Amino acid sequence: MTQALVLQSDFGISDGAVSAMYGVAHSIDPKIRIFDLTHDIPPFHIWEASYRLVQTVPYWRKETVFVSVVDPGVGSNRKSIVARTHANQFILTPDNGTLTHLVQSGLLADARILDDTIHRLPVMGESYTFHGRDIYAYTGARLSSQVISYEEVGPLIPLESLVLLERQVAAQQGEVLHGIIEILDVRFGNVWTNIPAAFTRLIGLNIGCRLGVEVMYNKQLIFSETLTFGHSFADVELGVGLVYINSLDQLAIALNQSSFADRYQVGIGNEWQVRIQKVEE
Amino acid sequence: MTQALVLQSDFGISDGAVSAMYGVAHSIDPKIRIFDLTHDIPPFHIWEASYRLVQTVPYWRKETVFVSVVDPGVGSNRKSIVARTHANQFILTPDNGTLTHLVQSGLLADARILDDTIHRLPVMGESYTFHGRDIYAYTGARLSSQVISYEEVGPLIPLESLVLLERQVAAQQGEVLHGIIEILDVRFGNVWTNIPAAFTRLIGLNIGCRLGVEVMYNKQLIFSETLTFGHSFADVELGVGLVYINSLDQLAIALNQSSFADRYQVGIGNEWQVRIQKVEE
Amino acid sequence: MTQALVLQSDFGISDGAVSAMYGVAHSIDPKIRIFDLTHDIPPFHIWEASYRLVQTVPYWRKETVFVSVVDPGVGSNRKSIVARTHANQFILTPDNGTLTHLVQSGLLADARILDDTIHRLPVMGESYTFHGRDIYAYTGARLSSQVISYEEVGPLIPLESLVLLERQVAAQQGEVLHGIIEILDVRFGNVWTNIPAAFTRLIGLNIGCRLGVEVMYNKQLIFSETLTFGHSFADVELGVGLVYINSLDQLAIALNQSSFADRYQVGIGNEWQVRIQKVEE
Repeated sequence: MTQALVLQSDFGISDGAVSAMYGVAHSIDPKIRIFDLTHDIPPFHIWEASYRLVQTVPYWRKETVFVSVVDPGVGSNRKSIVARTHANQFILTPDNGTLTHLVQSGLLADARILDDTIHRLPVMGESYTFHGRDIYAYTGARLSSQVISYEEVGPLIPLESLVLLERQVAAQQGEVLHGIIEILDVRFGNVWTNIPAAFTRLIGLNIGCRLGVEVMYNKQLIFSETLTFGHSFADVELGVGLVYINSLDQLAIALNQSSFADRYQVGIGNEWQVRIQKVEE
Repeated sequence: MTQALVLQSDFGISDGAVSAMYGVAHSIDPKIRIFDLTHDIPPFHIWEASYRLVQTVPYWRKETVFVSVVDPGVGSNRKSIVARTHANQFILTPDNGTLTHLVQSGLLADARILDDTIHRLPVMGESYTFHGRDIYAYTGARLSSQVISYEEVGPLIPLESLVLLERQVAAQQGEVLHGIIEILDVRFGNVWTNIPAAFTRLIGLNIGCRLGVEVMYNKQLIFSETLTFGHSFADVELGVGLVYINSLDQLAIALNQSSFADRYQVGIGNEWQVRIQKVEE
Repeated sequence: MTQALVLQSDFGISDGAVSAMYGVAHSIDPKIRIFDLTHDIPPFHIWEASYRLVQTVPYWRKETVFVSVVDPGVGSNRKSIVARTHANQFILTPDNGTLTHLVQSGLLADARILDDTIHRLPVMGESYTFHGRDIYAYTGARLSSQVISYEEVGPLIPLESLVLLERQVAAQQGEVLHGIIEILDVRFGNVWTNIPAAFTRLIGLNIGCRLGVEVMYNKQLIFSETLTFGHSFADVELGVGLVYINSLDQLAIALNQSSFADRYQVGIGNEWQVRIQKVEE
């Protein structure tokens, strides 16, 4: 049976690019089931593409094939990769850091270099700028339709040799949890850290206690307040801040029905540090 | 056979939330057919979610399962509901007013309380904030794939006890039709009232006649002009206003190829009253 | 077997319009496979709808049915058309210029007038403003599901009698290539001309050579610089301009990882002329 093919890109859905990818994939097998992760990754934002994969891949079936094309180096000599998760899912992507979160979460089993001189749309013209259509959608569809096997895409490459983004890990130091703003829950302006919910038990944080929360940008203090550690937004009044466990089991900061990100103008990445500690039961 | 599963939310499609819902649903049954109503409901805007359901549900087959997640009270003690239409379609949603238009249009047959301590994704972590994925997509997929029956979701609840939004109804008073701006045709800026086309016959409005149209915000007059009652936009010159029967058989106000909503800065809801009467054959 | 049904419109995806079209199509055949081209055509922008068809149609299988509804004249006496490509694909659309690029690219084999007094949703109300749902999605689904044949939609109409947009063609004059800005690669701000890559061989342009590039709006010079003719963006430094062959095998102008369209505030259409010539090997 044809497995699900799930597409991600920074192409947007306002022009014909994504539909051309769909057409190529559907041409491989008319029974193929194609879905979108998102096509609204900010242009060239590899970090966010990497995060959206770790956010969603675990919720899809084994043998699902993901294609992620955020590819500022298209047409250069950057490699193309097919990675395999322990759950036997596949991710096709340029080797540019897009696999960072999957690698560091321990979800990947192994990876192969995609030989894109062989695995490409036969009728290609002279263009070197749309590998999403000509290489990734084409090969992803052939893999999900079992026209080719994982072994046939190309030789194994050690996971250690994949290009990774620099990414600071979360840490506990005494009574303080340290992390970064990993990503925004963009629609609602909630701020998601990389601090695992499990860390809260290391320092005895229980739902209902009061937490000192600091957000810094390059060591400069942007936000410093005492917030409730709640189950969910409705645990505090409208517009009031809280700390909660997000849908990836990591600590997050929000205002109930208002945007923390807009209010405090915060961004994402290693420069955006977060410190959390208990100040009151 | 697996029935269609149609998803609506205020999550947007810029991150991984909707794709995680798709993944969960697809994991229940790889042959499932998932579609979107829209994920662009303005955050927390229950009224608009309610309207989009009545706008679309009648055009889908019997046994289609709808999931609508606009859920400011996620994680609180608000109930979850599965409603059934007379056409034997199902709608899963928080009990927060999302069913208002369906109830008031007489489309619902009955409803059950979803026991979400049982009907939830088994591998859930510690999060209380993503019931769209963990409860609604999961249960909607099981219902559309007939893993569970409607009867199994939980006990019946009287339709009268559902949470409804306050919503003013349209009325005829003598020669005047009274209503509210129910919703915007957002892309084009057309203004849709809640006045049924059938009311035009009560006071003898025929295509081609001239209508006095007033729009008020909290009794304050925002717009007052005489407009043609036309079949469609092209019945008047570019940029000129008209009244017409919209695709839900209700009266609407527009400018031909221009945005009435932008020009007159109108919004939606009970505060936005509309008065229409004939001034000339 | 049911063939793919691919929908395009200027309706956006923020309300229920597209989902109502999906519902109608799915009601014709629950096994139908529906896809989107895009619903983000700027309102009433027939030129862009026409371009997005030629950008994508060739990548879909034979017998795919496309529905394109950018329809400022909805409810007027404009005709409805079903066109057929040489690859036996079908396009349903108002006869308002939407087929311009397909006709001029020589992709169309023939066309028929859709008799929309017969081919329309039986349960239609009084509305004249949503032919996307009531006529095009309905008939497109019946065609893709083979409920009706192409011959049954209505009588043949000569391709020469279709409504076409005025559209300037590209030309070579001596050492200079002349064209227009045909469309933007909207997400990235790249500027796509209508000059075929094949023209570069007529005047001996090779990858790596330097080109004099001029962009004019109504004869007024907007941009004039010497740029490298590259394979892809990464052939030049960040922020630097280049000329390249786009994914439709036509010449395009871009800044590496920056928006040419924003920087120089360019638009699309016959008024936006481009001149390209070699200045250096």
